[in-house]
Amino acid sequence: MLRIDCLSIFPEIISGALGHSIPSLAQEKGLLAVAHHDIRDYTTDKHQKVDDIPYGGGAGMVFKPEPVVAALSDLRGQDALVIHPSPAAPRLTQQDVIDLAAKPHLIFLASRYEGLDQRVIDHHVDLEFSLGDFVISGGELACAVMIDAIVRMLPGALGKAASFQEDSFYDGLLDHPHYTRPPVFEGHAVPEVLQQGHHEKIRLWRKEQALRRTLAFRPDLLANREQDKETRELLKKIRAGQD
Amino acid sequence: MLRIDCLSIFPEIISGALGHSIPSLAQEKGLLAVAHHDIRDYTTDKHQKVDDIPYGGGAGMVFKPEPVVAALSDLRGQDALVIHPSPAAPRLTQQDVIDLAAKPHLIFLASRYEGLDQRVIDHHVDLEFSLGDFVISGGELACAVMIDAIVRMLPGALGKAASFQEDSFYDGLLDHPHYTRPPVFEGHAVPEVLQQGHHEKIRLWRKEQALRRTLAFRPDLLANREQDKETRELLKKIRAGQD
Repeated sequence: MLRIDCLSIFPEIISGALGHSIPSLAQEKGLLAVAHHDIRDYTTDKHQKVDDIPYGGGAGMVFKPEPVVAALSDLRGQDALVIHPSPAAPRLTQQDVIDLAAKPHLIFLASRYEGLDQRVIDHHVDLEFSLGDFVISGGELACAVMIDAIVRMLPGALGKAASFQEDSFYDGLLDHPHYTRPPVFEGHAVPEVLQQGHHEKIRLWRKEQALRRTLAFRPDLLANREQDKETRELLKKIRAGQD
Repeated sequence: MLRIDCLSIFPEIISGALGHSIPSLAQEKGLLAVAHHDIRDYTTDKHQKVDDIPYGGGAGMVFKPEPVVAALSDLRGQDALVIHPSPAAPRLTQQDVIDLAAKPHLIFLASRYEGLDQRVIDHHVDLEFSLGDFVISGGELACAVMIDAIVRMLPGALGKAASFQEDSFYDGLLDHPHYTRPPVFEGHAVPEVLQQGHHEKIRLWRKEQALRRTLAFRPDLLANREQDKETRELLKKIRAGQD
């Protein structure tokens, strides 16, 4: 069972975001135990102050080190990894998600404002990840997103074991398009190959569509990928069609 | 005032995630009106079925087109942009966030399972964005993250107008480190330059730190950036120190 502790000043954002669907079911199934903690409970002054002005001036406040470190000392066992979502960190990838899903105990630390005192990051945080090249108002939603991604990789968390094998990024490509009934909707038909039921043709069509989409939106993913003969031939066909 | 409609099968995930802090305050201030809608309310069968099996086979279900399109027809006014978070799309950037914050009406459509029928995307969705190269169990949290990012860019949403100007990505670099009191914590001192109060030296130190961090974690951001003389000299200094 994966143990996750979430440490923030808005525990209800994270608990609310994880209280439904797959993360909630995973807790019911005993695959996961998530606990939420308020940094303010670790303050020692009567105003429960968690932030202070930054050295060197500038807008925004910085989390005081003492309450965060007191909380981490309380929660951190021998096997815990402390994760701090930050826009000033490498971007989270599906490989990171898979690696984290195999750990026994994760502590997610959500900061806000201008973030954590750098000394806390340097000496008490094990990993920092960014969601992407945009800024949100606090780390709580980033924690919820990262935990959701991790939970669905726990064995047994998804209803059908096969589901994640068709995800985007699972084989290094963006996902192919999907269609369901009716066969014609608003005058637009489902592609014929999908209606005919020839498994090999469907597999090849889906791979071509995934390659087309990856080439259009994320050519960087293809540049990093070893290409088998089938992939090379499909790419050649796609590129020839674009001329 | 920005109007946002959220359409999903778990409206409580999005409303829960946005019910605190800056998104909640922005609604109280009248900068924003968010409404949450359940796709199931637009089904016409007694089981309120929103998904169906995929054409061509494979694991996972696909959102049926009819209820989604009925909901969009109901919500979409003249000025609405329909946004569908999808891992098979270009990644959201802060520039997208800034552009979206200037629109009058956004409809966020959250899908799940294998996603939307491609015909709905082709004919009823205006923009698709991915959060990043990882997969989460539904679009609801992605919608919440995107909305949070957009809301904090609305004029008046942040407590101090200057705050977002010091964000990561605001000037194309990752943010510099932050420090607050005490001056020495667990034997580690705040960098001297920040304690001395010489504004120009502090500005230069912060820029160097931002460049160091960007060079370490996101060299791609530097490659895309026009470099002024000061930046070029700082990078030269950093690179010389690494040899």
